[in-house]
Amino acid sequence: MAELVGNLLVAQSGGPTAVINASVAGVVQEAGRHEAIEEIYGGANGILGILNEDLIDLNEEKARSIEGLKHTPAAALGTCRYKLDFKKKPDQAARDMDRLFEVFKAHNIRYFFYAGGNDSQDTANKIHEETIKRGFEVRVIGVPKTIDNDLPHTDHCPGYGSVIKYNAATVMEVAADVGSMATDDGSCCIVEVMGRAAGWIAAGTVLAKRTPESAPHIILLPEIPFNEAAFIEKVKETVAKARCCIVVVGEGLKNDKGEEIGADKTRLDAFGHAVLSGAADRLAEIVQGRLNLKTRTVKLGYAQRAAGHFASETDRLEAVACGEAAVRAAMDGKSGFMVKIVRLQDHPYRWTTGLQDLKDIANVEHLIPREWITEDGFLPNEKFVAYARPLIEGEINVPIHEGLPRHTVLDKIPVDKVLPPRS
Amino acid sequence: MAELVGNLLVAQSGGPTAVINASVAGVVQEAGRHEAIEEIYGGANGILGILNEDLIDLNEEKARSIEGLKHTPAAALGTCRYKLDFKKKPDQAARDMDRLFEVFKAHNIRYFFYAGGNDSQDTANKIHEETIKRGFEVRVIGVPKTIDNDLPHTDHCPGYGSVIKYNAATVMEVAADVGSMATDDGSCCIVEVMGRAAGWIAAGTVLAKRTPESAPHIILLPEIPFNEAAFIEKVKETVAKARCCIVVVGEGLKNDKGEEIGADKTRLDAFGHAVLSGAADRLAEIVQGRLNLKTRTVKLGYAQRAAGHFASETDRLEAVACGEAAVRAAMDGKSGFMVKIVRLQDHPYRWTTGLQDLKDIANVEHLIPREWITEDGFLPNEKFVAYARPLIEGEINVPIHEGLPRHTVLDKIPVDKVLPPRS
Repeated sequence: MAELVGNLLVAQSGGPTAVINASVAGVVQEAGRHEAIEEIYGGANGILGILNEDLIDLNEEKARSIEGLKHTPAAALGTCRYKLDFKKKPDQAARDMDRLFEVFKAHNIRYFFYAGGNDSQDTANKIHEETIKRGFEVRVIGVPKTIDNDLPHTDHCPGYGSVIKYNAATVMEVAADVGSMATDDGSCCIVEVMGRAAGWIAAGTVLAKRTPESAPHIILLPEIPFNEAAFIEKVKETVAKARCCIVVVGEGLKNDKGEEIGADKTRLDAFGHAVLSGAADRLAEIVQGRLNLKTRTVKLGYAQRAAGHFASETDRLEAVACGEAAVRAAMDGKSGFMVKIVRLQDHPYRWTTGLQDLKDIANVEHLIPREWITEDGFLPNEKFVAYARPLIEGEINVPIHEGLPRHTVLDKIPVDKVLPPRS
Repeated sequence: MAELVGNLLVAQSGGPTAVINASVAGVVQEAGRHEAIEEIYGGANGILGILNEDLIDLNEEKARSIEGLKHTPAAALGTCRYKLDFKKKPDQAARDMDRLFEVFKAHNIRYFFYAGGNDSQDTANKIHEETIKRGFEVRVIGVPKTIDNDLPHTDHCPGYGSVIKYNAATVMEVAADVGSMATDDGSCCIVEVMGRAAGWIAAGTVLAKRTPESAPHIILLPEIPFNEAAFIEKVKETVAKARCCIVVVGEGLKNDKGEEIGADKTRLDAFGHAVLSGAADRLAEIVQGRLNLKTRTVKLGYAQRAAGHFASETDRLEAVACGEAAVRAAMDGKSGFMVKIVRLQDHPYRWTTGLQDLKDIANVEHLIPREWITEDGFLPNEKFVAYARPLIEGEINVPIHEGLPRHTVLDKIPVDKVLPPRS
């Protein structure tokens, strides 16, 4: 295999996670070990920044800053939700693809790493295919990233372990609080977590359940159509036994018509999905209305995916490893693959990385298998627990400054632009 | 002073905190050092449990469990919002007071420690006054506890440092997330925190602000009437500069008529206050409506006051010390006082405990001084920062089991009842 000499470009896409920067650190540190890689660039705000020729010279960053990325949540390079949408906007997408290759050529980008979820792996795949059509060699490797844990073929996704570790700890703490306030009147608390189609995030809070009696008592997954009558019955039953009921709900919970119970259909995001809010508030109305039970809600929102202060050490190590593996695969001549995590055993947990063709990943959504959920649909079962438990192992030793996490802020020295502005 | 031989009763009241159990541990461990104290009892669910003669034998707990309370959030003995309301329900309150003394006498309670906020200190004061009227000596000492930090005379309240440490870290993390997603379209995120009348909790998130540009950009305090026009102007200005605007709002934010902007007046809590919800949602409507700016909300709810996994070590040590000081004061013959925290210096932070007459505490609400807030009312200033900074110093070494905090659960061996049930 001929050595491919040139520059590297890494970018982040989609919603940030607690460990997506750890993957970038893995890419940059591994790249530094290979002489064929000359310059190491970051794309500011994902594809959007690359289209604007907004590149960052990562070789100008302090080594300490790159290492610090391993403890810094959110997307240090900036991210975006911009998509090459050949279906809905074919002309724009074609122009964007041309522009991307102009940028690649102008900066001799020969290695491209894109850390992201479904949509981003789709983008990576399209770029890979285009490198072949255009005969301009760029080795394209996707780095998995999503708190949603909905990528297929990888055992799980970097970002997922951290979000469920934080959310499970939060549910445990909220349950202690609500439980200590609970008197015979009973009470209910509904914690809303992220998860539009897949319930992986909501399901992960089951790890807080250390005894059959303890919280969470009910987990409502988007995979299981919401049955109001059965839900109310379950809340009643739980309060009768435990005096309080802790409910976790994935924001994308749907009724039996497939409509999201918390959807506000007047707002759409950049991909045309309805912006969700209020599944917990809707459930609280139902519980209060039907049972006259004191009910409170917690909506963790962005806090859950950015919670670097209680991230999973396992997750962080895997995120770094995925970045490193991406670079090694490219140095090996590979292109058009996503790095995946392969589980070797549960106890003690052992894993390695592998590669999967990007064609197999793009736009396929991986949901929780039905057989990992109890028959009544209100909790994940022991199969899910065996799967999820290892992912939250280990605590990060977060650098602290004056009582709060010390986040790395990159200097972001821009690479000189050589092209005319994007038209 | 004659030695008073008898039993001790400690109880928790009002909303839990991350460190109220640390105060109980302080009481129990200090009590163990004094021979005059024979039995050490806990009241289950505060005054309510005492009225029901639901006492717990804390000498039956393992020493490890008592020590473990120092790392366990929420109220391990159980808490309540029950009040001896001599104004609105004088007959009930008089009956309750009689019953309390029946329980005290039946169990030879000679030392009573009540950990709580304003209402609880009021209850403690009434009980203290009654011991004199009735000629039955019980030494009553209040232990300060409230995330709201609204007790007068004490420099601050145990529980406050932990809630603002967690909230500030959360705001910092959310800001990193939102900032990394921000493109030229701009965005806004509104984080709702607790605080009905006093804005101490919201104000504390200013500690996340490490540069003039960084988040939080706007903090809306219940002390400052909400000015919609000025707020919208400030959001616009911030987004123009920083591409995103992070707003923190105390749940009790009021308009210029004194009405809470997020109040749902159809629901009342046990004290007759309106149950609040939705200040952040209301603000999001305003921002989206007026500026057409993508806006998300985070509502931490109970998660913030129960966040033992990122509690302040300073707060924890002070909470333990307040419990110990309460016992020492009682052994010293004192009754009718609340322990307070006295600040000796800011840098390095030094503090001690003192005593304040309960009469001076009950039902007085301590708000943020106006001169600790910037002129435009949108941020606490450097005086507040100097005050709050030391309170979040130090991280707790949380015991972890399988990736999640290990909370202590008390065995709660009940003390035999000797009275007829409460009528």
